[in-house]
Amino acid sequence: MSTLENISCNRAFGGWHKRYRHTSSTTGTEMVFAIYLPPQASGSRKVPVLYWLSGLTCTDENFMQKAGAQRMAAELGIAIVAPDTSPRGEEVANDEGYDLGQGAGFYVNSTQAPWQSHYQMYDYITKELPELVEANFPVNDKRSIAGHSMGGHGALISALKNPGRYLSASAFSPIVNPTQVPWGQKAFAAYLGDDVEAWKAYDSCELIAAADANDRTPMLVSQGLSDEFLAEQLTPQRLKQAARDNGYPLVLEQHEGYDHSYYFIASFIEQHLKFHANFLV
Amino acid sequence: MSTLENISCNRAFGGWHKRYRHTSSTTGTEMVFAIYLPPQASGSRKVPVLYWLSGLTCTDENFMQKAGAQRMAAELGIAIVAPDTSPRGEEVANDEGYDLGQGAGFYVNSTQAPWQSHYQMYDYITKELPELVEANFPVNDKRSIAGHSMGGHGALISALKNPGRYLSASAFSPIVNPTQVPWGQKAFAAYLGDDVEAWKAYDSCELIAAADANDRTPMLVSQGLSDEFLAEQLTPQRLKQAARDNGYPLVLEQHEGYDHSYYFIASFIEQHLKFHANFLV
Repeated sequence: MSTLENISCNRAFGGWHKRYRHTSSTTGTEMVFAIYLPPQASGSRKVPVLYWLSGLTCTDENFMQKAGAQRMAAELGIAIVAPDTSPRGEEVANDEGYDLGQGAGFYVNSTQAPWQSHYQMYDYITKELPELVEANFPVNDKRSIAGHSMGGHGALISALKNPGRYLSASAFSPIVNPTQVPWGQKAFAAYLGDDVEAWKAYDSCELIAAADANDRTPMLVSQGLSDEFLAEQLTPQRLKQAARDNGYPLVLEQHEGYDHSYYFIASFIEQHLKFHANFLV
Repeated sequence: MSTLENISCNRAFGGWHKRYRHTSSTTGTEMVFAIYLPPQASGSRKVPVLYWLSGLTCTDENFMQKAGAQRMAAELGIAIVAPDTSPRGEEVANDEGYDLGQGAGFYVNSTQAPWQSHYQMYDYITKELPELVEANFPVNDKRSIAGHSMGGHGALISALKNPGRYLSASAFSPIVNPTQVPWGQKAFAAYLGDDVEAWKAYDSCELIAAADANDRTPMLVSQGLSDEFLAEQLTPQRLKQAARDNGYPLVLEQHEGYDHSYYFIASFIEQHLKFHANFLV
């Protein structure tokens, strides 16, 4: 297991926000992640973990700086782990677009050159990172997962593909049907190739429609109705319909006037953390 | 009075975060500021305003994105106005250092070339900006002022130099004795010249020592004890001592483990907003 190098440490709401660098065997690169440890976490008391997956162009820092999540995490006694959104570095394939390559890993395991040598973000966030976190910090094996936009997609597919691994999942403004929208089609064509059938393994609408009746993870999705990407890229009604058709426990909440920014996330992160606490704490 | 050009608008906690650009007659440049209007603000209901002054290198955006202040401002019904930290633009004098020139106006009225033609931040934040805000938004004339580091200095001097104009003042990690510390000495020498007597008009320790017994503004100062600038630049004990000697109502709270970052501000902004609400609401 890789060694953790501490990059920074800030006290926040009685707990600690810390950033770490490590060499990932999954991506074959150095990866950076942040963890917020609430004041309840100690050598003698392990706390549950919410994994947060960020959206296009983000790093581990955006959520920790802008969402205001630490306040409620400290109150509820939940740790938060925020990974980066892709492998990075000079040796890592990239693209000029903000929506492909570094900062845009889409939480899939790439099968196509030049991406597949490092873009293995699905395995990184669902396997290597939780193992690393659970081995190195005072956390237990109760996990939930959440995210925003591309990270909302990542959170939903991670829960849907791993029944029982996450006790709950939530998303702000997620890309729920990437096989059918421009962001997803561009990224999946690059990372996964031309076989559209292979894309469906990372599409929340497809996964929720196929979910077994015994494999259910409680899900909350929040969507702003003034989100500039709502109609073309996000299409939350498709997920709601697929969930309803398969009797899947998903709640979609829509909020008048809110956009795609962190001001929306900050406004409702308390609700999401309390939702996860129902299952984690 | 200058015309306001709206730059952006985000719904947050039921209210609105908006950014504006205007031509300032005080600085002779375009200036940008942000305002958070809580849900209580309306054509028929005016709300009080907390002015927030940011620290070195910041713009109007840092506080609005990172402090998590909107939640409690929405609950208490207080608007927040965050100006930029200096005039900016190609025609505006600058310096290579992060602690002088653009992003480092120090909230003084410069008297020295090449700075004095635009660096009139004291008049901008205490006069032009409040007039502009009170003429254009659903706010009343109840004002308080707060800030961080260089902006904490700005908040304290603004309240001390204008008894009655602000109902309360607070600061995180403020520069309280700029005439005696490197950041202040560098900036004041440039903006105000060699006459150290002239510097004292912008030094909180000097101002609080000289405050008339009838001119008192309730003040709260919060300081992290792991702040890397504590001993050399911030020296809060000097302000506490000067306040005590003159019977000035200042409370200094010191917090173990907290540093100079926005993680500290976010952790205690609720307390500061409730402090101001005692006088504003």
